[in-house]
Amino acid sequence: MKLSRIKGTRDYEPKDMILREKTVSTIKSVYEKRGFVPLETPAIEKWETLAGKAGGGAEIEKQTYNFLDFGGRRIGLRYELTVGMVRYLSMNSNISMPFKRYQYGRVWRYEEYKQGRYREFFQFDIDIIGSKSMLADAEVISTAVEALDAIQIGLFTVALNNRKLVEGVLNYLSIKSKKQLEGAMRTIDKIAKLSRTEIYKEFRQYDIEKVQADEILNAITRKGKLKGELKKIRAAQKKKDFPSNKKIEDGLLELESLAGYLESFGVLNACEFDASIVRGLAYYTGIVFETIVTKKKSIGSVCSGGRYDDSIGKITGIDTPAVGISIGIERILDILKETTDSDIKIDYFVAVVSTEFQNEAIKIARGLRNRGFSCEMDLMGRNFSNQMKYANKCGAKNLVIVGPKDFAEGNVTLKDMQTGKETKVLIADIIA
Amino acid sequence: MKLSRIKGTRDYEPKDMILREKTVSTIKSVYEKRGFVPLETPAIEKWETLAGKAGGGAEIEKQTYNFLDFGGRRIGLRYELTVGMVRYLSMNSNISMPFKRYQYGRVWRYEEYKQGRYREFFQFDIDIIGSKSMLADAEVISTAVEALDAIQIGLFTVALNNRKLVEGVLNYLSIKSKKQLEGAMRTIDKIAKLSRTEIYKEFRQYDIEKVQADEILNAITRKGKLKGELKKIRAAQKKKDFPSNKKIEDGLLELESLAGYLESFGVLNACEFDASIVRGLAYYTGIVFETIVTKKKSIGSVCSGGRYDDSIGKITGIDTPAVGISIGIERILDILKETTDSDIKIDYFVAVVSTEFQNEAIKIARGLRNRGFSCEMDLMGRNFSNQMKYANKCGAKNLVIVGPKDFAEGNVTLKDMQTGKETKVLIADIIA
Repeated sequence: MKLSRIKGTRDYEPKDMILREKTVSTIKSVYEKRGFVPLETPAIEKWETLAGKAGGGAEIEKQTYNFLDFGGRRIGLRYELTVGMVRYLSMNSNISMPFKRYQYGRVWRYEEYKQGRYREFFQFDIDIIGSKSMLADAEVISTAVEALDAIQIGLFTVALNNRKLVEGVLNYLSIKSKKQLEGAMRTIDKIAKLSRTEIYKEFRQYDIEKVQADEILNAITRKGKLKGELKKIRAAQKKKDFPSNKKIEDGLLELESLAGYLESFGVLNACEFDASIVRGLAYYTGIVFETIVTKKKSIGSVCSGGRYDDSIGKITGIDTPAVGISIGIERILDILKETTDSDIKIDYFVAVVSTEFQNEAIKIARGLRNRGFSCEMDLMGRNFSNQMKYANKCGAKNLVIVGPKDFAEGNVTLKDMQTGKETKVLIADIIA
Repeated sequence: MKLSRIKGTRDYEPKDMILREKTVSTIKSVYEKRGFVPLETPAIEKWETLAGKAGGGAEIEKQTYNFLDFGGRRIGLRYELTVGMVRYLSMNSNISMPFKRYQYGRVWRYEEYKQGRYREFFQFDIDIIGSKSMLADAEVISTAVEALDAIQIGLFTVALNNRKLVEGVLNYLSIKSKKQLEGAMRTIDKIAKLSRTEIYKEFRQYDIEKVQADEILNAITRKGKLKGELKKIRAAQKKKDFPSNKKIEDGLLELESLAGYLESFGVLNACEFDASIVRGLAYYTGIVFETIVTKKKSIGSVCSGGRYDDSIGKITGIDTPAVGISIGIERILDILKETTDSDIKIDYFVAVVSTEFQNEAIKIARGLRNRGFSCEMDLMGRNFSNQMKYANKCGAKNLVIVGPKDFAEGNVTLKDMQTGKETKVLIADIIA
């Protein structure tokens, strides 16, 4: 009988798992150094939690695996990590703020099955809950930069913007209803993928005319060094080439404050301003950002997020500002796989010329492992040449050979598998 | 609105997660040093995989969360990790043997909700697939011993036995049908919890008479040092005080071979023979064992397993011997929680006397983090006394205070939070 996996799920093979575990553990170390603490929430949640205001709305509801449990209650598999954190916050109102948490875990979404699109995958989030200050935005962004540097992903750019700035421009153009604003944001979010005609058509759906669309496009094409672009906008405002109103002013002040903090954190050069970044989702309220790896732009953003000051309060009833990022661990691993040697390796393989030396081999393996080396040996009673084949599959860097002549002299032969060089070593020196 | 968790699930709070992550990562290091490689399989599997012969039988089927997916196919949440590994093996017949894998992951079972009984929990398994040799049994047992030592659980005993020995004794007493044998094993497994009368009654269900039951009880009460007990059985056989047949002989030879290997691995003293250990499950075929932590016997076995040579072949069609252990990570964490200081700690907290020093504080935090220290600071624009309260909640070991007088002299004040001792440090020395 041949069993099979559910479509859209996958096995993570040992070779891939080793790279994954190393990468996740490096990122966690950075998060902990920066004062983020781990939280784990259940993979299954009540349907009212998943489908409620805490959730991502009707679109995500359709993709959420849900079913009646044995007691007849509707439950579901989490489709993201934030919803569990918000449920946790609603049950623990005594948590001291700011709450800086990280979480790595599996989520499930029933999406159309395509190459590279999975129904079960991992998310890796950090959030700072409870602070309105741009200090918190600077902290999550600089933490993400430090994490990406730590895993040696190569050069990258954090492109950032403020939804308030875009909303201010839209308001200035008399686009004010919630429906129009959300529609405009969604359109701006996918502008790079659309032709000019398609863009007009999209905007038209939300009653945004061509003349307004042109003004929007004009405002959101600004892109470049963060501090420089902000100065250009200020200069343009003076010449009446860029609109001014309360929202725009709030947005610019926040960006200027953020730029100062990012400079102190030493990550300003990794960041750029991009007025077209808005993130599609309705719940962002302020700073938003995406991260593009220079050598792999086609893969899309590997680390995105922003400020969402309204979402948590809607659930908990307590005004709770928040800013968070989600590291796209699957995309990051795809990039790292191409550049990292993640072959399975082991320091030593202990081989016996005949099985009478089996117990000696165990003692030698034990001696090497006790000194912290990874070490393997035959567990099948195989002959010497089959042991050699297995040693190669294990990626053994060194071979210890236990044979009768050496053994009589109290020795084993140590072979460096790369150079082929052989040396005699006293058994007593290894086992000691 | 107050949201709530599904009964039988839980949130893993930061303090508990820190201990969990540290423990899991220590155990993984031991596994990798011993040549085990990580494998991750999906949390959701097809119902035919979960319910089939690969699975745990009707009893577990009843406890498995299952439902129709959006395409109308029945799928379910895994109730253990082995079933996914067996499905993986059936899809990858080219894997070189022995396959030594470890896996840490979530599983789900709909069991009656009781204190300390969860419907979602973690399992942590190692298995060696493909070797019939007692070397493999010795390798998993000694690996478990090394892992438990590495996490400093304290003294413990691995109690072990061989199902072949028990089956041999039962056969000798004319208990031979599959139903009788499985019933007898299940009864022996729970003998410690039953009164003598209840034991007879249990055996009676499987047509095992009082006189047979007495003989069984007599044989399975042997317990003590592994090598010593094996010698006693050999001596008893000579005096016809212990039965002999092919199965008993096979079982004893395996145990004697295992004892020799365990001695070479240096873990013989941590092991004892206990003829009453059989493990309830039908699929074990040879060596079985449980592990009891000396200072916490009441919690039950923290690490159990055994040899299951028949299960995988039934699915894959290829004869595949296997031996594995499952570390009871939840029980282990319960024990460690009582003895380990797992309070959240951070090396430094940078406090500012007034917000004008905010950017200086960021630079100092950055300097400390760059040197590998964990470091926190205020992200809320709070006054000094509220920063102190937060620093305490973060478990700061040291405080760096940035104030006007020090700053004018190019200094900050460093305060050791345990001794209260204060020293001046040059800012240039930290930021450099």
